[in-house]
Amino acid sequence: MKILLAPDSFKGSLSAVGVALAMERGIKKAFPNSETICMPIGDGGEGTLETLITATNGITKQIKVTGPLGHEIMSEYGVLGDGKTCIIEMAKASGLALVDEKDLNPLKTTTYGTGELIRQALDDGYTSFILALGGSATNDGGVGMLQALGLKVVDVRGEEIGYGGGELAKVHRIDATKFDPRIQTSTFLIASDVENPFVGPNGASHVFGPQKGATMDMVRTLDANLSHWGDCVENATGSRIHDVKGAGAAGGIGGAFQVFFPSEMRRGIDVVIDHIGFHKAIDGADLVITGEGQVDDQTASGKTPMGVAQAAQSYGIPTIILAGSIGKGIEVLHRYGVVSVNSIINRPMTLHEAMENAGELIEFSTEQVVRSYFCNHEFQKRKVVLNNEN
Amino acid sequence: MKILLAPDSFKGSLSAVGVALAMERGIKKAFPNSETICMPIGDGGEGTLETLITATNGITKQIKVTGPLGHEIMSEYGVLGDGKTCIIEMAKASGLALVDEKDLNPLKTTTYGTGELIRQALDDGYTSFILALGGSATNDGGVGMLQALGLKVVDVRGEEIGYGGGELAKVHRIDATKFDPRIQTSTFLIASDVENPFVGPNGASHVFGPQKGATMDMVRTLDANLSHWGDCVENATGSRIHDVKGAGAAGGIGGAFQVFFPSEMRRGIDVVIDHIGFHKAIDGADLVITGEGQVDDQTASGKTPMGVAQAAQSYGIPTIILAGSIGKGIEVLHRYGVVSVNSIINRPMTLHEAMENAGELIEFSTEQVVRSYFCNHEFQKRKVVLNNEN
Repeated sequence: MKILLAPDSFKGSLSAVGVALAMERGIKKAFPNSETICMPIGDGGEGTLETLITATNGITKQIKVTGPLGHEIMSEYGVLGDGKTCIIEMAKASGLALVDEKDLNPLKTTTYGTGELIRQALDDGYTSFILALGGSATNDGGVGMLQALGLKVVDVRGEEIGYGGGELAKVHRIDATKFDPRIQTSTFLIASDVENPFVGPNGASHVFGPQKGATMDMVRTLDANLSHWGDCVENATGSRIHDVKGAGAAGGIGGAFQVFFPSEMRRGIDVVIDHIGFHKAIDGADLVITGEGQVDDQTASGKTPMGVAQAAQSYGIPTIILAGSIGKGIEVLHRYGVVSVNSIINRPMTLHEAMENAGELIEFSTEQVVRSYFCNHEFQKRKVVLNNEN
Repeated sequence: MKILLAPDSFKGSLSAVGVALAMERGIKKAFPNSETICMPIGDGGEGTLETLITATNGITKQIKVTGPLGHEIMSEYGVLGDGKTCIIEMAKASGLALVDEKDLNPLKTTTYGTGELIRQALDDGYTSFILALGGSATNDGGVGMLQALGLKVVDVRGEEIGYGGGELAKVHRIDATKFDPRIQTSTFLIASDVENPFVGPNGASHVFGPQKGATMDMVRTLDANLSHWGDCVENATGSRIHDVKGAGAAGGIGGAFQVFFPSEMRRGIDVVIDHIGFHKAIDGADLVITGEGQVDDQTASGKTPMGVAQAAQSYGIPTIILAGSIGKGIEVLHRYGVVSVNSIINRPMTLHEAMENAGELIEFSTEQVVRSYFCNHEFQKRKVVLNNEN
């Protein structure tokens, strides 16, 4: 039998690699001769660069860029094992984790550094890009990124506007004549799970502004500013992004990609699955096992176990999910080829105990669940043999 | 598919019946058209009377007997649904639960009431007995029981000795002429998991005395007294029980049955399984599910899940175990047809939470484990169908 192990990390406890290896140990205990393939995976949000680089044996290049608050920081982009595909994780240049909580302010934070990463990669000769959008600290509609790539965004006095979503109110004119021409001859695959529109009550500012440090007053300003920027874009390009699905991703950078880049937006987990050799690895598999620390009614909205199950289902291969905690509403997962959802917890214990012993718990529960899954099949086969002998 | 549900209780939380019904709900969620048989079960220790009476739709008869400390108490014996087999649970006349902890003293406690239960059942016309030995408060070698049934046990002055293990030192002579003759024309099936000998370091007094309230001094006295009683028995009957396996059960009452009764001693769980219709119920089953609150390295020594698994294995039917807590050393269970051992705990939680929500947790985990177990088989069948269509 062949089993593909494609778990996410168990957050705060065990990396995706650690989870996959623990699963493998459990399977080998039950079936020493089984074939296992470890394919640790992320959901296409933060950590996607590491996931893809690790899975494809790629490389990273460190470069200095402008951080979210305008100070220089060390960042990086990655190149997949194919040597051609460049992976840029927005969070590494413009991410929440780069800003002290007390300094979070989407009126000020900029995507300029993300633009610099793209520019450097273009300079280095890459033309095929994956952009992972999760975890941004910004709400600037992607204007910083566009400026870093040569777009002129000026106020009534013809002066370039500054960093952050607060500056967008000043925009008077857009001039794309110096916008990096290499962008139009490149491809950009945008990994994003956000389907929110650019503006309005479900738009970037209202839905994601608060978690980036915006007060309600700031949210109203940011939304009005994005709307004004959208009007300017529409005047300059004829493309209206205000209500477009996904344009609200990562503080509106989604809209910038839609208008100014030859881009396609896909769910993060699907982008990951398509680039880590999953389709090759699953060939001939009898079962896929995935997992995440928490599995609940949010899992179906693009988390790793859901994406893995759907990909496996497209090959007609069933998936078993392991989780630290199982919440309500997991029944929907059965529609996507999920056989069962199983907890790794094997006795009453605290979260701390579970995290400390995650490896051992995953190993044990994986052993038990594959025993349950395969023993009946083996048993039925034996019965058939016995029947033939009669 | 047909599934036999034969769990024990989850102690302190859910009765065996409650566990079986929760399992049934889980299975019906996964496979509404499956056939399930609920067969709650006990391990043949305390609670055996209820288990057998409930399973066979039997009756109980209340009678007054002499309690462990010599006071009159209400007790009962049961008659199985066949109307013929009498079940006597020693703990109901001579049990630990009948004595306040502070009054526990095996020098004083007697099995007299157990003898009275047997006598009353004989008077009522029964000739086929099951004796469940678990949970006794006594260490009197079964002398109290024998006296209640007419055996004369006298001291040097020819006077009948009193209650308790402390009196055995006085025994001078045994006179069986008035011993109830109906015993020799009856059958006694002794349900006991204890294999300890009558006396010595592994005997009744040393191993079980302390949990019945004996100090180390008392243990030595009790062991010497049992040894003296064993000598008297040997002189009177020619049967030497000192080192006989199982003679040390329930404070040495095991030895009394071996010498004075036409009896057979069997593991408690096997006695239960043989008398609750298990063999009929398992016919045609695809799977047996059992369970207990705690499953660990003790489970293999005659606990319910082990007994159920072995009985199922004799029919070539696999068993899945559910538990609240899984301890070390469960691997040995796989030798007895146990497919997997699965915890009902589905997230980090306290023991209290687990106990409060046991029904829901058992339902959910049973659903998941039968999905895992049967889905592969269904999946393989579908594949076969698909292959045929090619």
